Amino acid sequence: MIKVSILYPSKPGSRFDVAYYVGVHMPMAVRLLGAALKDVSVEIGIGSAVPGEPAPFAAIAGFTCESVEAFTGAFTPVAGQLQGDIPNYTDIAPVIQISELKEI
Amino acid sequence: MIKVSILYPSKPGSRFDVAYYVGVHMPMAVRLLGAALKDVSVEIGIGSAVPGEPAPFAAIAGFTCESVEAFTGAFTPVAGQLQGDIPNYTDIAPVIQISELKEI
Repeated sequence: MIKVSILYPSKPGSRFDVAYYVGVHMPMAVRLLGAALKDVSVEIGIGSAVPGEPAPFAAIAGFTCESVEAFTGAFTPVAGQLQGDIPNYTDIAPVIQISELKEI
Repeated sequence: MIKVSILYPSKPGSRFDVAYYVGVHMPMAVRLLGAALKDVSVEIGIGSAVPGEPAPFAAIAGFTCESVEAFTGAFTPVAGQLQGDIPNYTDIAPVIQISELKEI
């Protein structure tokens, strides 16, 4: 299984609308990616290793799929719709990570 | 639920021993954190948004707990043992993210 993570690095002065992201954008992503999506996670940053310091990332979304090809096949047709929605909740340019999931 | 993510940013020339990390370090972390750990995930970076470019992170570990206090209570007594093991698999200084998990 692979996981595509979309990480939004915290930046001073940037905006991130958690309510819109959790309530509108991510449900839209789940709906549009459909059956290719085996699991989804949404993390909203609340802290770092140092108490009182901001979280390194405002948010991290995780999309788990069988393979990179399964993700790409589902994502490519809806990429414009999903990426076009980003300005509705943030001005942060996300970092994209593709990982292999390992069992422990 | 909260998730503590340990992210290892990819750096040119750095080393990351995936076999040790997946086979030794993470099982040790799971054993030491014990019942406070509700879920664990290990992601090994394989790519980014641009084909052929390296993954932004060599690895990302995720520890899910009921609360920050539950994680801290389990982690603090074993922090020395876990952090002391880091040089055995990498010379990358990890980034620590504490997040609130949201249901979609």
